[in-house]
Formats: sequence, structure tokens, C-alpha cells
Amino acid sequence: MKTFSYLSDLTQAEVLRLVELAKQLEASPDPGALAGKVLGLLFMNPSLRTLSSFQSAMARLGGDTFVISPGHGTWSLEWNDDARMDGAHAEHYREAIPVLGSYSDALGIRMFASGTNLEADLADTQFKKARAVCTVPVINMESAIDHPCQALADWKTLDDLEISSSGKFVLSWANHPKALPLAVPAATLKMAVHRGMDVTILRPNAYALPRSIMDHAQSLANSSGGKVSETDSVGDAMSGCDVLYAKSWGSSTFYGDAQMEEKNRASLAEWCVENSWFSDAARECKLMHCLPVRRDVVVASDVLDSPRSVVLPQAKNRMFAQMAVLHSMLSN
Amino acid sequence: MKTFSYLSDLTQAEVLRLVELAKQLEASPDPGALAGKVLGLLFMNPSLRTLSSFQSAMARLGGDTFVISPGHGTWSLEWNDDARMDGAHAEHYREAIPVLGSYSDALGIRMFASGTNLEADLADTQFKKARAVCTVPVINMESAIDHPCQALADWKTLDDLEISSSGKFVLSWANHPKALPLAVPAATLKMAVHRGMDVTILRPNAYALPRSIMDHAQSLANSSGGKVSETDSVGDAMSGCDVLYAKSWGSSTFYGDAQMEEKNRASLAEWCVENSWFSDAARECKLMHCLPVRRDVVVASDVLDSPRSVVLPQAKNRMFAQMAVLHSMLSN
Amino acid sequence: MKTFSYLSDLTQAEVLRLVELAKQLEASPDPGALAGKVLGLLFMNPSLRTLSSFQSAMARLGGDTFVISPGHGTWSLEWNDDARMDGAHAEHYREAIPVLGSYSDALGIRMFASGTNLEADLADTQFKKARAVCTVPVINMESAIDHPCQALADWKTLDDLEISSSGKFVLSWANHPKALPLAVPAATLKMAVHRGMDVTILRPNAYALPRSIMDHAQSLANSSGGKVSETDSVGDAMSGCDVLYAKSWGSSTFYGDAQMEEKNRASLAEWCVENSWFSDAARECKLMHCLPVRRDVVVASDVLDSPRSVVLPQAKNRMFAQMAVLHSMLSN
Repeated sequence: MKTFSYLSDLTQAEVLRLVELAKQLEASPDPGALAGKVLGLLFMNPSLRTLSSFQSAMARLGGDTFVISPGHGTWSLEWNDDARMDGAHAEHYREAIPVLGSYSDALGIRMFASGTNLEADLADTQFKKARAVCTVPVINMESAIDHPCQALADWKTLDDLEISSSGKFVLSWANHPKALPLAVPAATLKMAVHRGMDVTILRPNAYALPRSIMDHAQSLANSSGGKVSETDSVGDAMSGCDVLYAKSWGSSTFYGDAQMEEKNRASLAEWCVENSWFSDAARECKLMHCLPVRRDVVVASDVLDSPRSVVLPQAKNRMFAQMAVLHSMLSN
Repeated sequence: MKTFSYLSDLTQAEVLRLVELAKQLEASPDPGALAGKVLGLLFMNPSLRTLSSFQSAMARLGGDTFVISPGHGTWSLEWNDDARMDGAHAEHYREAIPVLGSYSDALGIRMFASGTNLEADLADTQFKKARAVCTVPVINMESAIDHPCQALADWKTLDDLEISSSGKFVLSWANHPKALPLAVPAATLKMAVHRGMDVTILRPNAYALPRSIMDHAQSLANSSGGKVSETDSVGDAMSGCDVLYAKSWGSSTFYGDAQMEEKNRASLAEWCVENSWFSDAARECKLMHCLPVRRDVVVASDVLDSPRSVVLPQAKNRMFAQMAVLHSMLSN
Repeated sequence: MKTFSYLSDLTQAEVLRLVELAKQLEASPDPGALAGKVLGLLFMNPSLRTLSSFQSAMARLGGDTFVISPGHGTWSLEWNDDARMDGAHAEHYREAIPVLGSYSDALGIRMFASGTNLEADLADTQFKKARAVCTVPVINMESAIDHPCQALADWKTLDDLEISSSGKFVLSWANHPKALPLAVPAATLKMAVHRGMDVTILRPNAYALPRSIMDHAQSLANSSGGKVSETDSVGDAMSGCDVLYAKSWGSSTFYGDAQMEEKNRASLAEWCVENSWFSDAARECKLMHCLPVRRDVVVASDVLDSPRSVVLPQAKNRMFAQMAVLHSMLSN
């Protein structure tokens, strides 16, 4: 594997092989597999799970890591290709990325959306610029428009739970104090349809996902036999639902306009996942969320603390999913 | 060992076995003992010795670590169990702690006192909340009311120096620019009486330790044959003293009232350990401090730079003490 | 090797052995050489290459590292030997350095120039104070007046490029938004003359290097057969040049006077390395820079992106140079 940028770049068979490897490594680690190998981790944005699960994954395979976090012990980077660098940014990504790559066997990069330029964020322009100047394999640790490590962990979680690959999967928008990136909803939607599931996106009208994401999901559905639909009705969406995946995201209608977005969101506080949402769902319906989750804003505490919630095994699977990616990419 | 939360939870025989193991690992490390094991380190508060000594301890036993420091590359955590999370804190400890634990074989947690709620700090409420949601063994890297790694290192230091287990141990308050937590004085007092020593707490009246700490110390003394007393007289305390342990702490009388505490402390600048304090002490009387120490405020520079001071071997013993804890907890 | 403080403390033969070892480790790492060894890394100033290349170097030799960065998870340190510590700094270097050393087999220290006291910076007073209280070997990760790891990497880069040891080496000042330390220009000048090269320092008159640096360079030239001269003429300097090493530094004339320095620099914006500078240079003339480099302020983007630029292999050599230093210092 030369890069791990987007899960949807892999065929379903390739994803299934990674999930299988993740399960094997969960059951029986391979502690010498990456001896002498070094994974560089560049965090342009903060992290809890991604940092710790990658460091632990690498350690459990016998390898090592280093971490660079501009703003936390490292100066800030310039990402504008045309900048005359007389401002605050001390180093250009066109030097920083290849240099970090040259000390690494693979480089993980986290780089969130701009939140202001929808077109550039949808095209994942910045992550692709970084990837283009790196001479070692790149791992996407969440870019503007995707989060493939989360998606792979989620796929494994669905398999672990023995949820049918043709089951009903609801991706629901939820309230949040601020407009969040589209990376996780896009990754989640694509993962579920790629797995062949019957996916419903539940969201207020102003929070419809951009056309290009929907089109990509539809093309994956065409291959996998999955389905994609949208609704703003909790009742319609939740009826017969096997898995509810909650996640907030910013409105594309008001993209980059924090004030208008906030004004619109003010009336949407009831979009917090409650136990009542599950009344017409399948009896065993699960609640997923990528974390961090804001309790009693995005999901009610009593749902998170109930047996429905699989957010902790889901998070734990980040480590095994990443061990599979690293093993495929770097073992001899 | 399923947890290392409080040294006083261990019997004297168990502590002695840990000290013995620390000495063995100092003389001859066991570099493969923790191969493939990962220690997670969660720092809610800053650190120098604890971070570096745990990372080095784990490395010398063949294991690995990761570090999460909210505010330094990771968002801030919510600790209020009833919070509706629409504010600054992005993730609840009820998710963060078990997730970090799921990537770890043991999790170290540093979480200082609130400094405002004396009752909750004495009960170590927050640390115990964190521990309760963690599914792997927890190591207390300094909580509101204890610092068992420091206490174990200090016990070994006393043994290394061949200071009699029935010798006279003075724990002295000292001046400081601000009110500090009770964790180290409580841990130090309990460690010394647990070891069987004759302990005098030397402090101005407004700095008497809370009743619950004194009672706990007395019950340990009853088992060990040690003694506990208090005085505000330097002369009385230091007479025949074998070890002076200097440490500042905040007044329980003015707990959480920084202004009143500061006003009261204004007249206590002479509570800086000077060479003159040792005139009636045992000739070989040692000076201990857990570090960091403010020179010429808490302890005079010439005392710190004299042969009496054992603050550096004391700090070095952090590494060996923690190697013993990790070895007991995690080796096969 | 008991310390790696200044490359000029080594004989030319000793440097050549280190370069040879770096080349060997590049061709064939020695992954068990430092098993069980721990390198402490103390960063008083930010870093990108130094942090990641030392961590990767140590990992590739089988050893481990820890990182302490005051201000990023660790409190600030007091460096004044006479301070009464009632201010912002919680710990004195006279405790912090030996403690960190006691957890380490060697300690790397980064500590930039004060930028205000030229005499103290030229004497490297602060780094030498730190080194004096450390009981394990110290590695200079850039001090006020030297950067020997960079210099060793640069020497290897010149060898890798088969640039004659008697070739013409131009060290050129360049514009920058602020006054930078003298460490890299001093290290670069000394490295090039130590290697035996014909070195020209190209700089505006207010940016002449201090007498003590020039004298040191001349004495190295006397031993090596190298030469040292200065000019403010780009044409004179670049004529027949084999390597142009660009680097900005602050004026010694206006040392510590940011306003006067800035005023003087305002007219020097043309001191940005352009393709036109190379018209009379050797056809294969290379561009070196230690990075980070400000594009289109210090060096024009099209020079950095041209085949002349060797800034990336130069940065990569940091890792191999440091592997050689660590191997010489710590392997059994």
C-alpha cells in the first residue's frame, strides 16, 4: 500500500482484507513486524485518539514514532504556494513535509478543512498538496474531506457487531456549538455504502451534504449494492434502523459564514440524539459516534451510557485498524 | 498490582518489596520485561520529572509510552458529570479516559487539586472518578491529595541513605509565592510514618494539615510503631532531626481564598530553610524536597548546594521507583 | 566522545571519522547499537528538524528518547544564578538539568542566544552553565553561538556532493523579518574553513561577523589550509563559487536594538538570493540553507525549487550525522 488517503480508493475486497488483518492483529499482535521503522506524525490540528492510537499501534508492531505539532514546540507553517514569507509563518510546507518524510518510513498528516472555501475543502486541496511533496507513503489522519482511519475502524466495528452488510444505517446530523468539518460525515457515508448498507442521511434541510459527496456515495452504492437516501424526518429515518451514527457538521449553505450558521442552528437544539429516537428502530439498534462527543448537545448522556452505545469499542478499533494499515504499508 | 493510587493502601511489607525491586532494577535493569507493553500518560497538569522519568522508566524496561496533555495538542476535557457540553470543553472524561485506557496496558494520570473545594480535594474525588471509568490499571502521577510515586522514591532514598526507620523526620512548611496543593505533604507524612519514623510537622499555625490527613497518619503510625506530632517552633522540630523534608502547601484555613492566603503569608517569608536551622539537628541531617524548589524562597541556595541536600538522588529515585511499579504491574 | 558541544573542538581527522560513520549508518543502520539507551531532549526553543531527526536517529539505533519543552507541558526555568525565585520561573536549571540527565544516557540541549547580550552570547555562557551541571554527555542542539549537528550534516552533504575540500564556499547574509542568532553562520563558517575551503563571507557592512568569530575561523584556516575573506559585493563573492550557503543573522552593530536593526534592514530587501546571483558562479554551484527558510525573502522560490538547491538532502543528513554522534557517544 503506497498511501492511505481515502478508504474509497480501495476496492471492497481490499477493505475486507484490511479489516481481516486488523482482527488478526487484535487477536495476536505481530510485535517485531515494524522493528526499526519510524512513523512521522504531523498534526496541524489537535488530537486525542489519533495521536495516542497511532503511537500505541506503532509500538505494538515494534516500531517508533515522532510527533510534530506546529504551535506546540514547532513554529507555524506556510501553506500558500505564492507567499512572500515575511509574516508569522517561519517554514513552508514545501520544505517541512519532505524533510519530515525524509526522517520517516511513512508520514501521517492531520489537516482539517479551512471551513471557509467549500470548493477547496471538497477537493481536499491542501492535503493533496502536502501528499504531492512527500516522498514516503502518506497516511491521512483526517483531512478536509475524509477520515479513512476512522472509517476503517467503523467498518471493523460493524463487522465485530455482526451487523448485516445490507442493514439500515442512519447517519444523523446533530446540534453542536460550532460548525464542524465535513470529513467524518463524508467518510462515514462512503464507508457505509461501500460496505453495501442501506444508508439514510437524516439532517435539517440546511445541512444537506454537498452534491459531490452525494454523487460519490451513489457511485459507491452502485458498485456495492448499497443505497443512499436523505430525509429530515427522525421518524422516517429511524424506522427499522440497525445503526445510528450521530455526527454534527457545518452547513454548506452558510459555509464560512459563522454568524448565519449560528443563527440558523439556534432553532435546532432538539437535534440531540435521545432515547426516544429509537422507538421504531431495530431492537438492537446501536449508537455510533467518532468522538469527541458533546454530551447532552450531540447525544444525550443516557444514550451514551446505555448498552446501545458502541462508541468505546469503536474508538478502540482505531488502534487495530491503524495497525493493519501500518502493517500493510511498512512490513517486510 | 491492579492499581498504584495510594502508597498507604499497601502494607509495609508490600512497600518494602517494591523498594527492594527498585534497588534491583537500579543495579541491573530488566530490558525485555515490558516488551510490547504501552503506558499511556495523561497530564492534566504540567510536569518535568514525572513525564521524563516515566518515559525513561518504560524505555529501560523495553516498553513504550504515549503522552496526552490537554491544552498542548489536545482539547480540554469536561470533568463535570452533569454538564451540558455547550462550552469550551470538547470531550468528557467519561469517554476520554476509557479510550486512552483502551490503547494502553496501564494509564498514568496527573490531576492536581482544585484548590477551591477542600472537601472534594481531600476525598480525591476527581482522580477517583477517572479511575472508576478506566478498564486498565491506573497509576497516580499526583492527584489532589497524594503523590505515591514520589513517596515510594522518597522511601527508597531514605533506605539508600541508611536512615533509621525509627529516626526523626521533620516535614516543614515553607514560604512560596502561591498556595500549593496538599498532595506532597500528605504523601510525605504518610510515607514517613508508614516507614515507622518519628515525624514532626513544622508549620505556622494557619498551615496545620487537615484533620483527616492527621488522623490517617496517626492510624498508620499505630500500625508501624511510628509517631506524629506538630509544632510551629523550628528549634523544637529540628532538635535531633535526621531528615528535614521541606515543602510549601496552601493553608486549609484560607482554602480557595487566594487574597487572604497571600495576606497571611506576607509575614512568613522567614520560613525559608536556612543553614542555621540545622544547628541542633543530627550532624548528618539531610535536606529533602520533591522539586521543583524555589531557591531562596523555599530553601536557601547554600543549603541546596551543600552536601546535606539529597534532592538530586531523590529525584533520580523517581525513575527506579516507577520501574518497580511498572514491573510489578505489567511484567508477565 | 564525552560531549558534542562544538565541531571545532574536534580535529579534522575526528570529524572525518564521524562523517564516515554517518555514511556507513546511512548505508546500513545498526539497529541494536543503542538498545536500552535513553536520550533526553531539552528544548528551550522551538524545533522541527532537530526534534524529529533526533527521535528518528535514536529509534533507528534501537534507543529511546524523551522530550521536555518548557512552556509546552513543562513550567519555565530560571537561568539566573542569583535569582530569589519568587517570580514566574518554577524551577532552576541547577536542579532541572542534572535531574533530566539522571534519567538519560545523554542529554541534548537547545538554547538559543539571548539576542541582547552579545558578549555572553559569543561566550555561550548559558549553554556552558547547563553543561557544567550535567553529569551525562551533553549534545548541543543549537546554542547561542554554535550548531554543531547542523555543521556535521553540512560537512557530510559537501562530501556527498563531491565538492572539493579546497573549493570556493560563500556564506551569504540574507534579508529576514527579524534579527536572527549568530549560531548557524558561526557554525557554518567554522565548518567550511575546518574542511579546508576557501570561504568568503558576503554581507552588508553592518552585518560583519564579530571579531572573535572571524579570529576563530582564521585559526582553523591556519590549521586546515583554508582561507577566510569578507566582502559586500555579490559579484566578487559569487565569481567561481562552488557552494552558496544562504543564512540571515542579526547585526552585531545593533545587537539587542530591534528598532535600529529593523531600520537598517529596511534598505536591504534585495539581499534575497536570486538566480541572477549565480551568473558568474561555477556551473554546478549549489545552494545550501539550514532551514527553515523564508521563501522570496531569504531565497527566491525558483532557486529553492531548482536543481541547485540541496536543502532537502542537507536536512536529511541531520539524521545520519546525529546517528553517528549518538553511536560514537553511547554504543558499547
